[in-house]
Amino acid sequence: MKSVRRAYASSLNGTWPASKAKYVPTSGTYPKGYTAAGVFVGIKHGNTDKLDLALLSSDRPAAAAAVFTKNKFQAAPVTFSRRLLDARANTGLRSVIVNSGCANAVTGTGGLEDAAAMASTTDRHVGAPDSTIVMSTGVIGQRLPIAKIVDHIPVAYLKAGDSHQHWLDCATAICTTDTFPKLMSRSFKLPSSPGVEYRIAGMTKGAGMLAPNMATLLTILATDAPIAPGIMRSVLQQAVDCSFNSITIDGDTSTNDTVALLANGAAGGTEVTSEQSEDGRAFSGMLTDFAADLAKYIVRDGEGATKFVTIRVVDCASLDSARTIARSIARSPLVKTALYGNDANWGRILCAAGYALISPPGHLVNDVPEIVPERTSVSFIPTDGSQELKLLVNGEPEEVNEARAGQIVQATDLEILVKLGTGDKSAVHWTCDISHDYVTINGDYRT
Amino acid sequence: MKSVRRAYASSLNGTWPASKAKYVPTSGTYPKGYTAAGVFVGIKHGNTDKLDLALLSSDRPAAAAAVFTKNKFQAAPVTFSRRLLDARANTGLRSVIVNSGCANAVTGTGGLEDAAAMASTTDRHVGAPDSTIVMSTGVIGQRLPIAKIVDHIPVAYLKAGDSHQHWLDCATAICTTDTFPKLMSRSFKLPSSPGVEYRIAGMTKGAGMLAPNMATLLTILATDAPIAPGIMRSVLQQAVDCSFNSITIDGDTSTNDTVALLANGAAGGTEVTSEQSEDGRAFSGMLTDFAADLAKYIVRDGEGATKFVTIRVVDCASLDSARTIARSIARSPLVKTALYGNDANWGRILCAAGYALISPPGHLVNDVPEIVPERTSVSFIPTDGSQELKLLVNGEPEEVNEARAGQIVQATDLEILVKLGTGDKSAVHWTCDISHDYVTINGDYRT
Repeated sequence: MKSVRRAYASSLNGTWPASKAKYVPTSGTYPKGYTAAGVFVGIKHGNTDKLDLALLSSDRPAAAAAVFTKNKFQAAPVTFSRRLLDARANTGLRSVIVNSGCANAVTGTGGLEDAAAMASTTDRHVGAPDSTIVMSTGVIGQRLPIAKIVDHIPVAYLKAGDSHQHWLDCATAICTTDTFPKLMSRSFKLPSSPGVEYRIAGMTKGAGMLAPNMATLLTILATDAPIAPGIMRSVLQQAVDCSFNSITIDGDTSTNDTVALLANGAAGGTEVTSEQSEDGRAFSGMLTDFAADLAKYIVRDGEGATKFVTIRVVDCASLDSARTIARSIARSPLVKTALYGNDANWGRILCAAGYALISPPGHLVNDVPEIVPERTSVSFIPTDGSQELKLLVNGEPEEVNEARAGQIVQATDLEILVKLGTGDKSAVHWTCDISHDYVTINGDYRT
Repeated sequence: MKSVRRAYASSLNGTWPASKAKYVPTSGTYPKGYTAAGVFVGIKHGNTDKLDLALLSSDRPAAAAAVFTKNKFQAAPVTFSRRLLDARANTGLRSVIVNSGCANAVTGTGGLEDAAAMASTTDRHVGAPDSTIVMSTGVIGQRLPIAKIVDHIPVAYLKAGDSHQHWLDCATAICTTDTFPKLMSRSFKLPSSPGVEYRIAGMTKGAGMLAPNMATLLTILATDAPIAPGIMRSVLQQAVDCSFNSITIDGDTSTNDTVALLANGAAGGTEVTSEQSEDGRAFSGMLTDFAADLAKYIVRDGEGATKFVTIRVVDCASLDSARTIARSIARSPLVKTALYGNDANWGRILCAAGYALISPPGHLVNDVPEIVPERTSVSFIPTDGSQELKLLVNGEPEEVNEARAGQIVQATDLEILVKLGTGDKSAVHWTCDISHDYVTINGDYRT
């Protein structure tokens, strides 16, 4: 068996697999007023040269918001950053400081002090107290080598710059078992300021793909558009629900998951103060699309993944149920191993839909009006533009051309379409397959 | 990589792996008044000699109940048998007829007719109309070769007997990807009839182990104790919750899952008419223990499994939450791959507990009083009687002797103990690891 070995803690220093090179940008259009850096500290034992400390700073106060994990065991940087954003009411933030190689989770009051030390050291260099969001990713239950980290924050501050390479180093330093850095940038306009070009950049890291488990998801989004602090949280939450919460690593479950958005207004133009305004809706739509495209990179880099699969659930009685059904199919190990095995096994797809909404064991009540077997249809949609392959139509199995089904399922990209016929709501979820490599990587992750 | 290939449809004809031989009984004490048979039909294409039709019959009317899957796509035999038991009010049943090799699921009205034909053919031979429960397991979306099956029901009826080999053939014929037949028998007494020896026998099949997905779980339990029809369903449901719903194949999710209990009273004694009576409590306790021991065989035969792991959650504020947390740990692919890799990674255990009770993405409300990080403890309990290894005590990581941890996690059997410190409820869940073989088996299952 050919096995991809992944080092735990940013294994990337400008090298990534040839097959992933197309996902790494060679240039970008970055938002004004930000500087970025990625430096080497050596946080994880055995890391002798990988970037593992990232700093992103705005040259002026920015509105900021973050969506954090709901896991009951929240890492110290999550607790610290949540309190900071609450205390600042989403205003006046300047920096995000991130380390990989150690999660600073389940580390008690000492861990909280370490997170605070990372923030205050950054604050001092940037010259603005209480202005730094902290993120960490890595192994749970170990204290950070905080002296080393604090010593290197000045190095990061001095090295920071606004070139493509600076942003790429920053995106590289947040990685753990990722095989390539995930960085994107884009320009956009808002209706009320047609003469202003706004920009947004984002970086993310993920990796574990099987379920929304412990492969920490960290994301930093930064724009130079002027967004009012009061709408930041809600605009971000909506974007996260349709992106990082719509891949099989959900943003809600590791001890450290954090998605942060900074908006420093450096590009000028009119401040966006309402989500319902024309500008608000335009920004929200742009942010959701941007976040979804960034989230897809995480699926492309799923541990051991060989396929990128879109699960689309349409004509459902409720949005919540459409999302739950899409997620259930995306998470099903039997669906995922069938995809890996190039097996067009629609029975497993149907089965995963069929148990998505049922009550847990021991509970008898189980009314699921969103699914009516006789109205359910399942198709494979090839991504090469060729014809849809119907597998089940209104609850009746089709005579499937197995050769054609095998052909579609062998492609790297594939869409599974489930029509429920019970309403007009829909949801999309992105996922990948489970391979032998997934087991190898995760059976030998900590050691 | 050494790969265990499993044929899909009873791959067993008196041969099973040497390592599993200890789980297959060579004799038994079977309940009075029942005959059993397992015969070859050739239901699945390519099956040339494996038993694939099972019949269990009582020589007198029996009380019967069943717990069925909650999956919205219910197989025809599930629909048929549910209606039958409702119509008969759990009384006057005689037989269970089971085929492996084809699930008769998503087969429309034709499939329902096939299930009815299996039942009525059995009824005719037994000489009692509307007295046969039907079960099927195998691939979804294909019609049964019903003529062949109907032709072979008389053969099964003629071959049926009450010897150990008859019961073993019956238990073998219900298997699909199982590597050994799962059969158990036991004697017991009830307080009000101290002079009567009662007997119970049970057979089950499972196999897929990763999550409660599509590896159909079928179980038949038969006793010669006299149990009133009115309490059968509730006694069975309670036993299932603490057994088949407490392993990582939950009984509630495939299209075909069915657990049936027959009680024909052939041993005599006083009828048990109340669950709250001394007899009722004794029978219920015995049935729960028996079902749990049978369910553990399924875990022992998990696809590709190399370990048997008990997850025990104690001191929890509610029973439901204790179960949900235990199941979340048991289902976590990251916990399961760590166990496979002999990695004592308690961080993944904690993480899986920490997301067990959280609200889904898009829902902000997330109050989880059952988990308080500072009161949570995690230990490994070796099964060789040696000392507990504390990993986390009241939220603080212990200095773990990694050599000792590695030693414990390398054993085939292992218990993970999670103390929550928020109440007095507890739950146990049994699970196994995920190996390379799991991926191999499930990536190449239908073909």
